[in-house]
Amino acid sequence: MTGKPLGRFYAVGLGPGDPELLTRKAERILREVDWIFLPGESARQVSFAGAILAPLGLPADKFRSVSLCMTREPGINSDRYRSAAREIIEGLHAGKSIAWATEGDPLFYSTFLQLRQRLLEVAPDLEIEVVPGISSVNAAAARVGMPVAVRDEKVAIVPATYGIDCLPKLLAEFATVFLLKVHLVFDQLLDMLGTADMACEGCYLENIGTDRERVVHDLESLRGQKLPYFSLVILRKLAGET
Amino acid sequence: MTGKPLGRFYAVGLGPGDPELLTRKAERILREVDWIFLPGESARQVSFAGAILAPLGLPADKFRSVSLCMTREPGINSDRYRSAAREIIEGLHAGKSIAWATEGDPLFYSTFLQLRQRLLEVAPDLEIEVVPGISSVNAAAARVGMPVAVRDEKVAIVPATYGIDCLPKLLAEFATVFLLKVHLVFDQLLDMLGTADMACEGCYLENIGTDRERVVHDLESLRGQKLPYFSLVILRKLAGET
Repeated sequence: MTGKPLGRFYAVGLGPGDPELLTRKAERILREVDWIFLPGESARQVSFAGAILAPLGLPADKFRSVSLCMTREPGINSDRYRSAAREIIEGLHAGKSIAWATEGDPLFYSTFLQLRQRLLEVAPDLEIEVVPGISSVNAAAARVGMPVAVRDEKVAIVPATYGIDCLPKLLAEFATVFLLKVHLVFDQLLDMLGTADMACEGCYLENIGTDRERVVHDLESLRGQKLPYFSLVILRKLAGET
Repeated sequence: MTGKPLGRFYAVGLGPGDPELLTRKAERILREVDWIFLPGESARQVSFAGAILAPLGLPADKFRSVSLCMTREPGINSDRYRSAAREIIEGLHAGKSIAWATEGDPLFYSTFLQLRQRLLEVAPDLEIEVVPGISSVNAAAARVGMPVAVRDEKVAIVPATYGIDCLPKLLAEFATVFLLKVHLVFDQLLDMLGTADMACEGCYLENIGTDRERVVHDLESLRGQKLPYFSLVILRKLAGET
């Protein structure tokens, strides 16, 4: 397919889970477009993103589901992204306006980043308008009223699986550290926090802004528990605030 | 004043500048509350936050302006925050519902964090509901379509005044580095980027989402220019994306 597509393409961030945390722009665009691609876990009937959008009452025939496996294995969803990318490019050439909806922010650890690669393989000049969304980081801090950064403080955002052993070093330099996807290494994190001399307060959050939300301040009480994918820990240096 | 205040208090993030990047929740709460405290630069007639809210057409008598000096000197606005805090607590006890509106996110380098300290001095048990906003970090990345983080990448957010000399070390470890408030040290940043062996792409953005927005990919072209307060640079490691 050559030439400039007729339709507009949007990557739309839906925010962390609470439908009210959609932006006005996201809402307008989702109402305006012809198709909304909705990535979701194949195992679930209603995707997480779909649940966020439910209160908008958009017509069901607007939605195109993209069934993904939630896995850390990079290649496993490639075919699904590739076929979604082809369908999107074909739709745009047929004059459809299309949005890819993702929970959180489209550029922050999101399904859109995998799709984007496939899209640009097929259509390197494709214009994409990204509508930012409230990320889990800002949502988590707001939920517990913990500052992300005051004045000249530094912030680090680190997937826990790769960062646990760097924690003491990180906390020496950054006032706030967000550890994402902590479910896989939570007990190791507890051990690290126990041994290292780190004067920080911590808070655990899962499924923020949904009806399955949980906030736990006593991290040790979670030892040995099975934790979900959408889980994070905020660590904040004590006396960091002035 | 003792006892639990009657009114509810909210810290509401307005997002980076585009009125459409307000969340639906922010809009609802700003319509519902009795008073909206609007911090702004004393030198300007309409505050930045006020300009974001203008399209909502809220009644003028809802607003309470708080005139602040934009300065790096910590103490200089203390009295203004203290008197705003007193007025808020009095209002809450009189049954008013009150929002403190800030550009961006209330917990991310915001005026609210200064106010919060003063509020908690007067009323340590005050319940504050924080409504997160799109931060300049997510807005900037969306504006230029640059990933914040893919898969297991790490992200650092650093005020440029304190972080320029740490840049080579930061870029060795973090896939994306956001340098905030770069206006004061921009030429130093250019020198550092020129000398250090850092394979990264960079992008400069100012006043994102406003009619004074500027996006510059050729950083060197900005050498010697006077840059505004709301300015940031995204540095992203090349080949960081897979």
